[in-house]
Amino acid sequence: MNAIARYLPILDWGRRYDRLTLTSDMVAAIVVTIMLIPQSLAYAMLAGLPPEVGLYASILPLIAYAVFGTSRTLAVGPVAVVSLMTASAIGEAAAQGHADALTAAVVLALLSGAMLIVMGLLRLGFLANFLSHPVISGFITAAGLLIAAGQVRHLLGIAAEGGTLPEIAVGLAANIDTINPYTVAIGLGALGFLYLARTKLKGWLSALGLSRKAADLATKTAPIAAVAVTTLLAFGFDLGARGVALVGEIPLGLPVPGVPAISLDLVTALAAPAFLISIVGFVESVSVAQTLAAKRRQRIEPDQELIGLGAANIAAGVSSGYPVTGGFARSVVNYDAGAQTPAAGIFTAVGIGLATLFLTPLLAMLPQATLAATIIVAVLSLVDFRAIRHVFAYSKADFAAMLATIGVTLGLGVEPGILAGVAVSLLLHLYRTSKPHMAIVGQVPGTEHFRNIERHSVITHPEILNVRVDESLYFANSRFLEDRITALAAERPALRHVVLLCPAVNDIDASALESLEEINQRLHDAGITFHLSEVKGPVMDRLKRTDFLDKLTGKVFLSQYEAVAALHSGGPSPLQAARNHVEVAP
Amino acid sequence: MNAIARYLPILDWGRRYDRLTLTSDMVAAIVVTIMLIPQSLAYAMLAGLPPEVGLYASILPLIAYAVFGTSRTLAVGPVAVVSLMTASAIGEAAAQGHADALTAAVVLALLSGAMLIVMGLLRLGFLANFLSHPVISGFITAAGLLIAAGQVRHLLGIAAEGGTLPEIAVGLAANIDTINPYTVAIGLGALGFLYLARTKLKGWLSALGLSRKAADLATKTAPIAAVAVTTLLAFGFDLGARGVALVGEIPLGLPVPGVPAISLDLVTALAAPAFLISIVGFVESVSVAQTLAAKRRQRIEPDQELIGLGAANIAAGVSSGYPVTGGFARSVVNYDAGAQTPAAGIFTAVGIGLATLFLTPLLAMLPQATLAATIIVAVLSLVDFRAIRHVFAYSKADFAAMLATIGVTLGLGVEPGILAGVAVSLLLHLYRTSKPHMAIVGQVPGTEHFRNIERHSVITHPEILNVRVDESLYFANSRFLEDRITALAAERPALRHVVLLCPAVNDIDASALESLEEINQRLHDAGITFHLSEVKGPVMDRLKRTDFLDKLTGKVFLSQYEAVAALHSGGPSPLQAARNHVEVAP
Repeated sequence: MNAIARYLPILDWGRRYDRLTLTSDMVAAIVVTIMLIPQSLAYAMLAGLPPEVGLYASILPLIAYAVFGTSRTLAVGPVAVVSLMTASAIGEAAAQGHADALTAAVVLALLSGAMLIVMGLLRLGFLANFLSHPVISGFITAAGLLIAAGQVRHLLGIAAEGGTLPEIAVGLAANIDTINPYTVAIGLGALGFLYLARTKLKGWLSALGLSRKAADLATKTAPIAAVAVTTLLAFGFDLGARGVALVGEIPLGLPVPGVPAISLDLVTALAAPAFLISIVGFVESVSVAQTLAAKRRQRIEPDQELIGLGAANIAAGVSSGYPVTGGFARSVVNYDAGAQTPAAGIFTAVGIGLATLFLTPLLAMLPQATLAATIIVAVLSLVDFRAIRHVFAYSKADFAAMLATIGVTLGLGVEPGILAGVAVSLLLHLYRTSKPHMAIVGQVPGTEHFRNIERHSVITHPEILNVRVDESLYFANSRFLEDRITALAAERPALRHVVLLCPAVNDIDASALESLEEINQRLHDAGITFHLSEVKGPVMDRLKRTDFLDKLTGKVFLSQYEAVAALHSGGPSPLQAARNHVEVAP
Repeated sequence: MNAIARYLPILDWGRRYDRLTLTSDMVAAIVVTIMLIPQSLAYAMLAGLPPEVGLYASILPLIAYAVFGTSRTLAVGPVAVVSLMTASAIGEAAAQGHADALTAAVVLALLSGAMLIVMGLLRLGFLANFLSHPVISGFITAAGLLIAAGQVRHLLGIAAEGGTLPEIAVGLAANIDTINPYTVAIGLGALGFLYLARTKLKGWLSALGLSRKAADLATKTAPIAAVAVTTLLAFGFDLGARGVALVGEIPLGLPVPGVPAISLDLVTALAAPAFLISIVGFVESVSVAQTLAAKRRQRIEPDQELIGLGAANIAAGVSSGYPVTGGFARSVVNYDAGAQTPAAGIFTAVGIGLATLFLTPLLAMLPQATLAATIIVAVLSLVDFRAIRHVFAYSKADFAAMLATIGVTLGLGVEPGILAGVAVSLLLHLYRTSKPHMAIVGQVPGTEHFRNIERHSVITHPEILNVRVDESLYFANSRFLEDRITALAAERPALRHVVLLCPAVNDIDASALESLEEINQRLHDAGITFHLSEVKGPVMDRLKRTDFLDKLTGKVFLSQYEAVAALHSGGPSPLQAARNHVEVAP
């Protein structure tokens, strides 16, 4: 694979493209287009943007991803969680007077795209590792709850602001008297219909004799049916005049490519949210792409995925869109409908483009409550209480990180929530690794083996302390090592030698090296010699580049047996020991 | 050791106190008092506070530490780095109009004290592990340079502000025309004298026949001699009238215990700096205390040290002081002068108290330039370029963290500097551990041993992939495991079984568990069965608490040999193998 092909996966699958693949991709594109139209409008509303922005974000970005992405079936576009994060970021920027919401959204997409591409080129995909599974899972559940709660006002037809659960609750309670009965009828009707479509329709259609696949696809058209029916209702009964909030006039035509004037203040204000959006979007997208690729034994390249998603976001930015990523539901639909190559994404983009050109006049009478119902039904599948129970049962530390994420996201918002989760999981990881397992070992009688003195009856000598450490030594545990060895030495007045067994030490960083020097010095001050044994080759090579081995008061022994034989004056000589040697199972 | 004695170490050493110990402690206290007087005044000036605040911070805190601390010889009080951090924090708070510098300093000490005590009670000393050695070392070097640069204006007698190196340089350049020749004479004179006293005086006095110890102690009196001589010069030549900045009137008497009115805004503004000061102070103090304790085979308790330092800071807060910690130089002096118990600290407090009562009128004519010279000579010993070279030679990753700390501290200030260091070292740690060592293994012919296929000639089967992972599985490396196994499976069309060898896996966190489930599912989708082998007991116990083992498409084998014997249809039966078994060295 040469360099150009690596950065342009389209060259690989494009040259093998044939008529059969074309047909599969076209069918999948039609299904996804029908699903994407109401979702794009709804998620744009969720992001606090005009509905057409959702359509714009579903055209060029899909083409860009098709050129640069490595997944055959990932469908990119606006998704719920990223839309919520966008709402929070651009709301903040607008409140500080940096820019209007539209400009902020475009800049957010451009920034996020640039960050993703840079991360891809520098192969910084590992940054996503900061988000542990419980933190992501907790964040998505909390975001789902927050999104659903935030849509209740559209269902009830009341005005209420707020980006956190307490704010939303207070806002709803304060305005509950302005509730609009027509909106409630439309909203709850759509909600009920969509909920039944999601949970029951497939079974009913199957019972009526439809094939499993046909029933499945018919179910996916439920949102567009809800859009059509409620739009007709709004038109027929003139619901706009009765106080039902409608989508309103949508500008006709495709977005004109371009970039607004960008101020440095705006970039500074949006940098942190853009980074978080990039990471969250990348994690969501890559896990979907991996799952689908594995089913067909295909591969994706995480670092190239960063570039693909980055290109999609740049494309969103230059076409008046907002941040996009790979969505779970739409990718599964794309996959199930038979998409074979990213060309399906290009055809979907054409479909959405045609809809933007010709269907938007019909959407002016669409009630916002319908879109709210679409969002609520879509996001409730994100809420996963079972995962919370599982994590609780498996690991209290992971549960604490998850709970912090959920609590802070609901109480303070999406950005503090995700940062709290990362902070708690890093703290707990550091805590776990800050106390490595250490064992005082002695010689198994008649062998060259050394075992924990607490678990085996072994030979020890009062003047020699053999300590084995079962972990690489680095800054998080180096101080523990200092404390522990100093304490062990202080308890033993007859001590003359300390031997540190390093068979499990894969790495010694600069902090741990200083700790070893410190231990060496402290033991020296107390009249004790410090030795190492069974140091691995690569670790030894690095130690040789320093003056530690010159400063070391004792020696480095190849084996622990050799160490004790040399240090214990009354012990057997190596020769004797070899004669007495009996093989013992490890 | 009962609970009360654990939290009150004074009960332990106090009951064995005798006349001999008393004499030793008194002598040490006198030496330390003489050293502390000029240092306390100077560090208060460095913190941007009136000089008497430094004396106040050297009375009650010493008594509090003597009651609660576990080190026999640690001398607490104002120190250079914490004074610089205090200057930065209270300067910021004062600039935002939250409080005057004095109130801010008191609140900072109280907050820091409360945080240290809470950390001690909750045993959160491991938080200090976030600061790797290279980050601390880089931070202290940068702080030393910053402090020295900041004192140049006092040496030259010009007014210039600034908390970062560029600001200081610009301030000095802009005001260089207001230089005062008398101040320069006093300042450079004191600087030269103190420098020679530090580097040469001991040698000269030894050459004159003084004992090593006497010469050493005489050297320690140099700062107080500089104070006395320059005060007399200022008095004799009326230097105050010639534009030399003097310390001025110091209020007579001891501080009246009390706490100022504290606003929530002020607490919020000072919380982050108080936390950083606590951590930095704790790390510095504990490493000094450990070093000195080890020399006499004594022990300190890091968690109780947090309480001791916390109590000292609360004491500083209620007696109009500012944040304190254990200082390196003064503790070594205390130790060398023969201090046996923390009572030496109590006697030092009495000494400083007497000085505050009776000597302060004499200090009104002390030139500030003398204090600046004291500071510069003291902090230059903190600057350690050798450490930078060592870290560079040993580890590029640690060097990067160190460089980030130094650069950001000098360029942007102390708080951003330390945070940058922590961030870079965490990032690099995550990067290092995000790609654990993995090996594909095969059977060593005629044995039950499995070795890396790249290093040994071993038996493999196209339908079985044996992968060994040499690290605990947790959130930083779980995604790598997913990617790697998915990729390995995608490359092997004939593959039917994947076995993950876990003899080196000490822990599987919730993220890694989900990754294993994901791998299991992906392999299942591709028609491949997933097995584990050689899972450690504690890890297996936790897996049994989940439904992972039910979902697992394959089995968990006790040994890898058993796994291959069961999975490879054409292979030897376990019985046959046992007969053929030959022992091979590991």
